[in-house]
Amino acid sequence: MSPDFARLPGFRDFVPEDLRVRSHVFDAWRAVARRYGFREYDAPPLEPLDLYVEKSGEEIVGQLYAFEDKGGRQVSMRPEMTPSLARVLGERSRGMSKPIRWFAIPQLFRYERQQRGRLREHFQWNVDIVGEADEAADAEICAVAIDGLRLLGLTAGDIHARVSDRRLLTAILTALGLDEAGRASAFQIIDKIERTPREKTLERLREECGFSEEHAEQLVEVVEAGSIEQVRERFGAHPEIAEALEPMTRYLSVLDAMGLSEFVTFDLRIVRGLAYYTGIVFEVFDRKGEFRAVCGGGRYDRLLELVGGEPLPAVGFGMGDVVLTELLRERGKLPDTSPTLDYFLVSVGDETRELVFELAHRLRERGRSVAYALRPQAVRKQFKAAENEGAAEVVVLGPEEVARGVAMVRDMRSGTEREVALPALGES
Amino acid sequence: MSPDFARLPGFRDFVPEDLRVRSHVFDAWRAVARRYGFREYDAPPLEPLDLYVEKSGEEIVGQLYAFEDKGGRQVSMRPEMTPSLARVLGERSRGMSKPIRWFAIPQLFRYERQQRGRLREHFQWNVDIVGEADEAADAEICAVAIDGLRLLGLTAGDIHARVSDRRLLTAILTALGLDEAGRASAFQIIDKIERTPREKTLERLREECGFSEEHAEQLVEVVEAGSIEQVRERFGAHPEIAEALEPMTRYLSVLDAMGLSEFVTFDLRIVRGLAYYTGIVFEVFDRKGEFRAVCGGGRYDRLLELVGGEPLPAVGFGMGDVVLTELLRERGKLPDTSPTLDYFLVSVGDETRELVFELAHRLRERGRSVAYALRPQAVRKQFKAAENEGAAEVVVLGPEEVARGVAMVRDMRSGTEREVALPALGES
Repeated sequence: MSPDFARLPGFRDFVPEDLRVRSHVFDAWRAVARRYGFREYDAPPLEPLDLYVEKSGEEIVGQLYAFEDKGGRQVSMRPEMTPSLARVLGERSRGMSKPIRWFAIPQLFRYERQQRGRLREHFQWNVDIVGEADEAADAEICAVAIDGLRLLGLTAGDIHARVSDRRLLTAILTALGLDEAGRASAFQIIDKIERTPREKTLERLREECGFSEEHAEQLVEVVEAGSIEQVRERFGAHPEIAEALEPMTRYLSVLDAMGLSEFVTFDLRIVRGLAYYTGIVFEVFDRKGEFRAVCGGGRYDRLLELVGGEPLPAVGFGMGDVVLTELLRERGKLPDTSPTLDYFLVSVGDETRELVFELAHRLRERGRSVAYALRPQAVRKQFKAAENEGAAEVVVLGPEEVARGVAMVRDMRSGTEREVALPALGES
Repeated sequence: MSPDFARLPGFRDFVPEDLRVRSHVFDAWRAVARRYGFREYDAPPLEPLDLYVEKSGEEIVGQLYAFEDKGGRQVSMRPEMTPSLARVLGERSRGMSKPIRWFAIPQLFRYERQQRGRLREHFQWNVDIVGEADEAADAEICAVAIDGLRLLGLTAGDIHARVSDRRLLTAILTALGLDEAGRASAFQIIDKIERTPREKTLERLREECGFSEEHAEQLVEVVEAGSIEQVRERFGAHPEIAEALEPMTRYLSVLDAMGLSEFVTFDLRIVRGLAYYTGIVFEVFDRKGEFRAVCGGGRYDRLLELVGGEPLPAVGFGMGDVVLTELLRERGKLPDTSPTLDYFLVSVGDETRELVFELAHRLRERGRSVAYALRPQAVRKQFKAAENEGAAEVVVLGPEEVARGVAMVRDMRSGTEREVALPALGES
């Protein structure tokens, strides 16, 4: 094959075995979203470039599949869904009853250069509640993410949601004497705390945020402890921190009432992007820490205004298919992807061939999946094809049986055979 | 809203009401494909430009969403699926058992300038059988298209597949004395016969193909008659035509055995694109002729070779979502798109709020769709929300009932109320 026809680097084909896995994941996502009363939406995979620049700044352009279309418009293949959601709701949210519970499963695109082996597209489950500021909405969003993973077979031993609140971390940093610039630096340092040696973190906190040795130690300890009680003990006397502890406390109690607390870990190390989130944030990780985050989200109360919409509080998450599928594979949770079929019809000689067409269509009308050899073939070859297509049962139409109004039905797993009256086929 | 954020012209948003219709169509497509033993696949929405130029020539570039990516590659958003299918199979068909039954539901993109109000994207059901030359495969493909439309509620009174065979038309034109150039002209004239006055067609046949008046009349008559018997009567003595009649005869007899003949009309006016198809072709139209074709397809035995793959016979069709959805709307066959929910949980006062979280999650674990007010609200407001979300039943958790271990359940359609023991909720 000429290399000019080859698939573009960073893109995937989905042959039926791959598509089966993808559908398995999408089906679970849709089922869980529906249980929570979310409704699916979609938007174009191509949008005006400004929609992304407005939210993320000019520097994002370098990561986009952006180009000029034939009408001279600056456009981009969508790198994320939330700006499209903001655009759509910006046009119509005023007439809608709140909260708005919507989800989507878009394919998203990023073009970063020199991404050896990294994908340039993925699918992402986007789930959002718009128009509700109560932390019950934050809890519901986190529960949807957890239940999506649970329905795929993952347990509290496999994954957990690490939850934090940017308002709480801000209050702690303020209590430790940082101004806005210092807090911004501290957020960045904490964001990298897991991949940085402790000594280096302490040094950066002292040098970049102006922390005393003691305050730096105190912060690292409380951030790494992963305990809301410890925050309360150490800092609860500060009224701003006591206040900032309230939403997180209520949030955790809702998840507890739902029976999901074993899936949830309080963890101040979860920071996420600097400009975007305004409250509770979370990321879901595998417990063993072998993979990147499976899912991330949180509250973003100012986004809709940015694209000119009604000011509305919002909370949501995105869960990609790539890391999740790797994790499911690693944990042995992928579905069987071999072909399956209810019936394969075998014609013995040419005279029963017309009956095959008729019977196949009758069975299909009853919702059964049916195939047969599309050209006259030896019985042995037809059985081989039945096996290849994963037929559960083979219906053999021999002239002698057909004359008696019956067919021989072979159960391909057990190998047992039985005679069935032709009109009764596919009825049970 | 700044116009720079506006949706690009020719693209659609799918708010939940629209997405519901789209899913309804996709679900029917998938269900029918599965009944026929087809397996779903997908490929990237962005491909090398050459993949399309090779098949359709340079002039197609003017209709594509084509651009140069940051790596200097000439790429295009996919305008059709078959080249991707050919590429994927070209890489792997040699090891696969035949026939290959695959389908996909890609979103496709065309950028034609000055298309007032026309869409630049649509979704298309692509169904193909690769590796089988027997006309039973052609019949199966046509049956899939018909059954896809039938499952959506369309009847033989609403739609029919108009079927022809390019080999048969070629044989007739040859018998009438045309050489290859003359046949090419005649194909183009016949392709436009429905939108051209009869006199003009006859004139063009005489002037552009060199037909005698008598032959031109004869051709128009047989083409417009829509009767395979008439072709046989008039031309059956020509051995080439008699031979070319055979596949169509067998094809029609298979569709007849399937019980689908009332959906099928023999019609030599169906020509389709000149370069692409090699045998039986078909298009599905609404009977009243109000819409463009709902679906078109046929046999294309040489395509896989074009992209360097194994030479394999192939037959397939594409069915778009746009015309089909218009037709379904016109015939009153669209599904109800209002929101639905199994339960809405109402908390009377704050004390039962925690129970709402617990019970909601328990019901969701049982697969039910459940919502509740995400902030404390008056009972009246909660009932209003239940109505907005289309709840079938409202579960009222009042302190007095809860103390007795029951809840009051209101059927929102009938208005009847009953007491249900809390553990039994959602069990039936």
